[in-house]
Amino acid sequence: MGKVKVIEINENIGAANETAAGRIREQMTSSETFFINVMSGPGSGKTTVLSALINLMKDRYRIGEMDVDIESSIDAQQVADLTGVESLQIHNGGLCHIDADMTARALQQYDTADLDLLILENIGNLVCPAEFDTGAHKNIAILSIPEGDDKPLKYPLMFEVSDVVLINKIDTIGFFDFSIDAARDRILALNPDALIFPVSAKTGEGLDKVTAYLESEIKKLKKL
Amino acid sequence: MGKVKVIEINENIGAANETAAGRIREQMTSSETFFINVMSGPGSGKTTVLSALINLMKDRYRIGEMDVDIESSIDAQQVADLTGVESLQIHNGGLCHIDADMTARALQQYDTADLDLLILENIGNLVCPAEFDTGAHKNIAILSIPEGDDKPLKYPLMFEVSDVVLINKIDTIGFFDFSIDAARDRILALNPDALIFPVSAKTGEGLDKVTAYLESEIKKLKKL
Repeated sequence: MGKVKVIEINENIGAANETAAGRIREQMTSSETFFINVMSGPGSGKTTVLSALINLMKDRYRIGEMDVDIESSIDAQQVADLTGVESLQIHNGGLCHIDADMTARALQQYDTADLDLLILENIGNLVCPAEFDTGAHKNIAILSIPEGDDKPLKYPLMFEVSDVVLINKIDTIGFFDFSIDAARDRILALNPDALIFPVSAKTGEGLDKVTAYLESEIKKLKKL
Repeated sequence: MGKVKVIEINENIGAANETAAGRIREQMTSSETFFINVMSGPGSGKTTVLSALINLMKDRYRIGEMDVDIESSIDAQQVADLTGVESLQIHNGGLCHIDADMTARALQQYDTADLDLLILENIGNLVCPAEFDTGAHKNIAILSIPEGDDKPLKYPLMFEVSDVVLINKIDTIGFFDFSIDAARDRILALNPDALIFPVSAKTGEGLDKVTAYLESEIKKLKKL
């Protein structure tokens, strides 16, 4: 079994989230660690997508992952098992999100100075996580085919705040009533600058475009 | 297009949720209206399942539906369109749940006295809605095959508080790595009394068992 560390973190309600987020982002920029916050509903395939992306990139980049969950350590364990990368499981005490102060406290227990890419796998939820800047450089949302192409209409804030949207499980599109064009139009109406990548973590389709994006952002941060 | 009414409701933080929930339950019991609160993650098929159940029962029972969403009216409109039943859309101001006080305020605008069955379709979220008693007689959770059989491990409170769990989209089980037995064991470990019904809203499979359950509860309430 891969190595997993678990820490318990609860919300500090008084914290000024934006200040804390800005501080994290500065720290990550100065250590040249590209930091992404990955959000989605439950079961959209966050853990599987991220494990696949890590495996495609881990020979060339130093990658770390932090997983947020209410009380289980399933996701961090799965990432560690599938990729061999050391992962940190954050237990957030039953909340439906993680904020910048909680992220900062997790980072105190995780040495990220040498990392090229740090991934925060947020809790499975399309509502609350969108409300909190975690200090990440970019927000990435995952929407999966079985969830339906109406989700941007129903959870608009998530798609407004996401720089990148992965449409996952495209290998199953024949079995569900999902229009990628409709999803794309709805996402772009909320955020005209969103980058949208249809992918399948299962078959690997489309993941090369996501790794190309991540690599270009890593290089940009390192001014290469 | 079917008829939909929209009201805006925000949280009253000071309300004693349990008292408000108890009051709603008494009111529903005294009017012999069986009141169910239906919860799930986004895209598990709540609206489609409920529309199918309503269509199977509407000739024999008077049914009402209330849909909670952040700001859209898609679900209530869909239920109204698919079933012809009048539905009430509740906008909850960006929250990830609905509590008993919010439910009570919605009920002031929706005459339920003549209903046999009142359905509250909660917001798509496996975390927050589980924390609030809405005053319903029974909680029903929906978990769909594409979401994965690990969800009871990751969102335990949802399955602890649910009297009934529908495992939806069983027509797609061949395309996903989902064990109904594993899901059942995990749900029963959290709530040994849970009733579990595998269903497909698309093909109709298993829905007869759910309508039989709802009918028996309606009759119990009416002491038939």
